[in-house]
Amino acid sequence: MQRAPIILLGVGGVGSALIRQIVHNRAHHAADYELELPILAVCDRDGAVITLRDALDDATLLDLVAYKANKGRLADHSQGGPQNDLAAVIDIVGQPGAIVVDCTATEATAPVLMGALARGYRAVLANKKPLTIQQEVYDRLTRAGDTDGGRGVRQFSRARWETTCGAGLPVIGTLNRLLASGDPVLRIAGAFSGTLGYVMSGLQDGQPFSAVVREAHRLGYTEPDPRDDLGGVDVARKALILARGLGWRIELADVAVTGLYPAELSACPVAEFMDALPSLDAHFRNLVAEAAAQGKVLRYVATVADGKCSVGPQAVAANSPLGNLRGADNLVEFHTRWYQPTPLVVQGRGAGVDATAAGVLSDIVELALNH
Amino acid sequence: MQRAPIILLGVGGVGSALIRQIVHNRAHHAADYELELPILAVCDRDGAVITLRDALDDATLLDLVAYKANKGRLADHSQGGPQNDLAAVIDIVGQPGAIVVDCTATEATAPVLMGALARGYRAVLANKKPLTIQQEVYDRLTRAGDTDGGRGVRQFSRARWETTCGAGLPVIGTLNRLLASGDPVLRIAGAFSGTLGYVMSGLQDGQPFSAVVREAHRLGYTEPDPRDDLGGVDVARKALILARGLGWRIELADVAVTGLYPAELSACPVAEFMDALPSLDAHFRNLVAEAAAQGKVLRYVATVADGKCSVGPQAVAANSPLGNLRGADNLVEFHTRWYQPTPLVVQGRGAGVDATAAGVLSDIVELALNH
Repeated sequence: MQRAPIILLGVGGVGSALIRQIVHNRAHHAADYELELPILAVCDRDGAVITLRDALDDATLLDLVAYKANKGRLADHSQGGPQNDLAAVIDIVGQPGAIVVDCTATEATAPVLMGALARGYRAVLANKKPLTIQQEVYDRLTRAGDTDGGRGVRQFSRARWETTCGAGLPVIGTLNRLLASGDPVLRIAGAFSGTLGYVMSGLQDGQPFSAVVREAHRLGYTEPDPRDDLGGVDVARKALILARGLGWRIELADVAVTGLYPAELSACPVAEFMDALPSLDAHFRNLVAEAAAQGKVLRYVATVADGKCSVGPQAVAANSPLGNLRGADNLVEFHTRWYQPTPLVVQGRGAGVDATAAGVLSDIVELALNH
Repeated sequence: MQRAPIILLGVGGVGSALIRQIVHNRAHHAADYELELPILAVCDRDGAVITLRDALDDATLLDLVAYKANKGRLADHSQGGPQNDLAAVIDIVGQPGAIVVDCTATEATAPVLMGALARGYRAVLANKKPLTIQQEVYDRLTRAGDTDGGRGVRQFSRARWETTCGAGLPVIGTLNRLLASGDPVLRIAGAFSGTLGYVMSGLQDGQPFSAVVREAHRLGYTEPDPRDDLGGVDVARKALILARGLGWRIELADVAVTGLYPAELSACPVAEFMDALPSLDAHFRNLVAEAAAQGKVLRYVATVADGKCSVGPQAVAANSPLGNLRGADNLVEFHTRWYQPTPLVVQGRGAGVDATAAGVLSDIVELALNH
């Protein structure tokens, strides 16, 4: 039986779903992979629960999940009280080789992960932030050695970050396979936001922009402040991760982002923003009409091609994979030397705590068996 | 610099393309992966070229490829003359840990691969045959150990066979990730034949079956005897590999195959078969009409679900991923607990020597870096 201990950072929706799935699959992993995934520590900003024995027992773990679901504070379970020093947690656990799993949404974990990797820990990230700050941080998290200025060589034995782009969909893994074969990737184009996919589908169906956004907001498809989705920055981070995956040296500031609202509406209160939405209806009605005039449809697309990384509304051929896309699913097209004129396409649910946690678990098992 | 020596079985289209791609990518693999892929032996039924030094040099390899392209016999290059004992070739090379790459199309390599794996070699298969004969052979090729009757546990460190299903498309890898996460796979449905995809698209466009098949034959999209494609057995082998990938204990004889011609036309000469094609036009015109009546379209689908593995023409929802498919691309839908109601979809070119060889090379790099 092989043992791959886990240190979990973040017990929000994805972290909690991951704990449930790990516990639920213990028999499956033992029987089919002879693999054991003990959890040694669980921490978030509220606190940390750490065992110095073999593992936290499943009852404790599930109790924690239920407790967090009820807005409980981990600190009330933990010895330490508020936990602002995740690096200290990892040192207390002190098991190099263990897999540090980042299910938080903060860039504050970046130094923790870099330090852990440097000390022989492995890492799985569901968190986009550490991979989308400075290039050097991306390099240290994803590459081994430090030839040419901290860049090092691609390797797959210490880190996985599949769920940072398209949740559980095999996007990063597919890109890595194309790169490994030396197939030149000419263009990546993808729809990476279920929320914006929903909005674009609504526009295509002839609804006014204001109506679609209000509906999405009402249904909870958007963040409390819909501008967090409509601005496109989250999509830009995914495009950046793909561009860096291609080996590009590029920063988030270099990604050309076209959001779905004008700058003058970026600062006002949410209510005011919602009231101003109808002023944007004509603009989007025109964009859809212009696209239709060329036999195209409007999608919110992330494009990585010709040295440029851009994100925004784009008219795509109606009969292309992106053109055929409906609703909230994510889709990515890889146009390469061997995959043209029709691209290699990966499509499906690109969000949701369970689908994302399942992708994280796949990354964990791959790392564990890759030794 | 890490070294992953290769023993290549088969120097047809895929084997030759693989040699070209390995040679072409030496600098890329050295720089980006610190990886060296020396080729120690190249063999096919005509003979074998073996080095007892570090590696066959690239000039010799490319010369071999050109020679084979001109219908030359490897034997004229080789010491041994006709090579019927691949196991002996591997023993002569004598480097356990080396990767045996099967680019042949014969089940005769099965004992060779099993023997090599048992002696510590690793394997990459582009060849479906060894994985679609007896279940026990599949188990020995894809699993480690021999708990419960030779079945053993899933492992990824010794064998890869991504290109046996959808060529370079990430199909087996995606299935393995779903399994690793414990996400229950409820249904797999796919189009795995470019030739049959072309035929089905033609039928959808209103062409008579006889006309589409003759055109495909004329363009060389089909085998010299089109029945080799129309019979569906090649697709059945792919469905079987997916079913066994799910852990099913199943033989090729258990796959329900519906071909595109009646049994009475299976024995006659090709010319006679081509002449008889118009007698099938009405049947397929009706199938298309019946499908259209339910808002569906006709596709040649491999289905793995509810304990049954079947292959044949099937009416699918026009707005489903399979329904949106056009032309020769392959497409596979994974319907799982987390991927429903819309499935996880992988789509793109599912054939071609270069796309297939690139997939084999990705498998080789993954195995080489997975140590």
